[in-house]
Amino acid sequence: MSKIRVGIVGYGNLGKGVELAIGKNPDMELVAVFTRRQPESIKLLTEGVPVYSIDCAEEHKDEIDVMILCGGSAKDLPEQGPKFASIFNTVDSFDTHAKIPQYFEAVDTAAKKNGKVGIISVGWDPGMFSIERLYGDCILPDGKGYTFWGKGVSQGHSDAIRRVEGVADGKQYTIPIDSALEAVRTGKNPELSTREKHIRECFVVAKEGADRAKIESDIKNMPDYFADYNTIVHFISQEELNRNHSGMPHGGFVFRAGKTGKNGENTHVVEYSIKLDSNPEFTASILVAYARAAYRLSKEKVSGAKTVFDIPPSYLSPKSSMEIIKEFL
Amino acid sequence: MSKIRVGIVGYGNLGKGVELAIGKNPDMELVAVFTRRQPESIKLLTEGVPVYSIDCAEEHKDEIDVMILCGGSAKDLPEQGPKFASIFNTVDSFDTHAKIPQYFEAVDTAAKKNGKVGIISVGWDPGMFSIERLYGDCILPDGKGYTFWGKGVSQGHSDAIRRVEGVADGKQYTIPIDSALEAVRTGKNPELSTREKHIRECFVVAKEGADRAKIESDIKNMPDYFADYNTIVHFISQEELNRNHSGMPHGGFVFRAGKTGKNGENTHVVEYSIKLDSNPEFTASILVAYARAAYRLSKEKVSGAKTVFDIPPSYLSPKSSMEIIKEFL
Repeated sequence: MSKIRVGIVGYGNLGKGVELAIGKNPDMELVAVFTRRQPESIKLLTEGVPVYSIDCAEEHKDEIDVMILCGGSAKDLPEQGPKFASIFNTVDSFDTHAKIPQYFEAVDTAAKKNGKVGIISVGWDPGMFSIERLYGDCILPDGKGYTFWGKGVSQGHSDAIRRVEGVADGKQYTIPIDSALEAVRTGKNPELSTREKHIRECFVVAKEGADRAKIESDIKNMPDYFADYNTIVHFISQEELNRNHSGMPHGGFVFRAGKTGKNGENTHVVEYSIKLDSNPEFTASILVAYARAAYRLSKEKVSGAKTVFDIPPSYLSPKSSMEIIKEFL
Repeated sequence: MSKIRVGIVGYGNLGKGVELAIGKNPDMELVAVFTRRQPESIKLLTEGVPVYSIDCAEEHKDEIDVMILCGGSAKDLPEQGPKFASIFNTVDSFDTHAKIPQYFEAVDTAAKKNGKVGIISVGWDPGMFSIERLYGDCILPDGKGYTFWGKGVSQGHSDAIRRVEGVADGKQYTIPIDSALEAVRTGKNPELSTREKHIRECFVVAKEGADRAKIESDIKNMPDYFADYNTIVHFISQEELNRNHSGMPHGGFVFRAGKTGKNGENTHVVEYSIKLDSNPEFTASILVAYARAAYRLSKEKVSGAKTVFDIPPSYLSPKSSMEIIKEFL
């Protein structure tokens, strides 16, 4: 059996995670990595796989079945998504929720024009969490959904801390509030404010001589990022930050609680949760499973942008329909 | 917009649940119920919907878009599944795991021959749990999956108790063992024996003068059903059984725990759980969502047997692709 030939665009944490995940899937092989950096400066974990400049990607279009785009949503993907979807089948993790419809259109147009498939916004949120939210809405229409994130490191909020005057370094953890989780678990469908759902815990390295009270106040009152939350700020040393907070754990919960019965007398609660040691490696594992789906759709001559909602669960699996039925149904 | 016209075959607990679930989905309408009993003897919850003999179903084939089969897996569905799939698009909850492949083939042949779709084995297990097991296997291939059932009433085990000599009535609860759940949650992927995963708790009404010690021993040593478990037997009165054990609660857990990283150093745990006040009403809600998928597949001229693995999540929803993207992605 010939393997699915996968390329990676962007070799940061996510790209490295994809490289490792491909190694766990015997029906796939990594054929090349594309980077904006000097290709010679990059040392892959896999022996014998070439690294090319991102500008030369098109030359390799016949060698790659699916390209996994591992760039960021803010700057990389808005440009790379449509561009690569015009040349390759693609999978990406575009996660700027508000801009997904316009990103979908751009990828859809580019992919359709060239007979390619682009699966966008793959990962756990957007991604597996989105699927759970949708299933919940469909199977318990008289109900309410909830999503909680954490405990885990928020990259965006950590970046925001580091932009505060007097801050040398910092990490932010998003933490769901236990009493809120418990209230949702009871099926009572509580109304919860932003402040009641999550707390934000910050570990901050102050520059020498910086005004710590001012840093703390600047963080806690930062609009959009912290002002609507109860925020805890700890000042620690750079050594401690490096030692205890260099990981990228994350997690979260999706709930659906709804009612059935003649008078809504029966309550049902569905809870989906994840606990991750490495956010990028878990996200990467999902991207690789969806690369298999992109390959299969492309074989069926499907083209255009797709989301996780469009993909039958069986398309993620290397196993045959009958194997899946016997093993999992 | 014209509604999806749904028929129900079999008006037991599941059929009644389907009737109620249709009422929660404004894009659907119940057009008829078919029964093996005297149609006149059945009083529906919905005003104005006719009840017909199951033998007259074919006469109504042009009035019904999807038929939901609510019979049992042991005796009803093996015959009804293929038969109805040759006349109608169907959804059923066939749950005899070992016989699913042969049931799939029978429905597939009948449905394909007549251009119909038959979605089989829909519900929560098989059904939503199956989907979670498959997703888990695909996104964490270097891992292990676990399914636990309960706490909830097992119909099969309750029936088994009632067949014991000297027993007037009884109910059996399947209960997952907390320490096993916790061991799985840690991501250590323990090996668990049958006895370590679940206990079985029985509430038994003895006939007057019956030998209780013998009943207890007969239950605890019953092969297949109880012998491999730690089983608790309580003797109670019929009044107490009726008062405290007449509900049909159920629930369960699907876990996937797996490793990523260069040396498997990162562990990820995915946990899906449900807590149900009414097993048949929750199952029915899922059947109705999949009836929408059957209708849509049929409109696309798809035919043959399908399982939940073949159905894109979006097909369960009455909402448009862009609405789903905006609301759930």
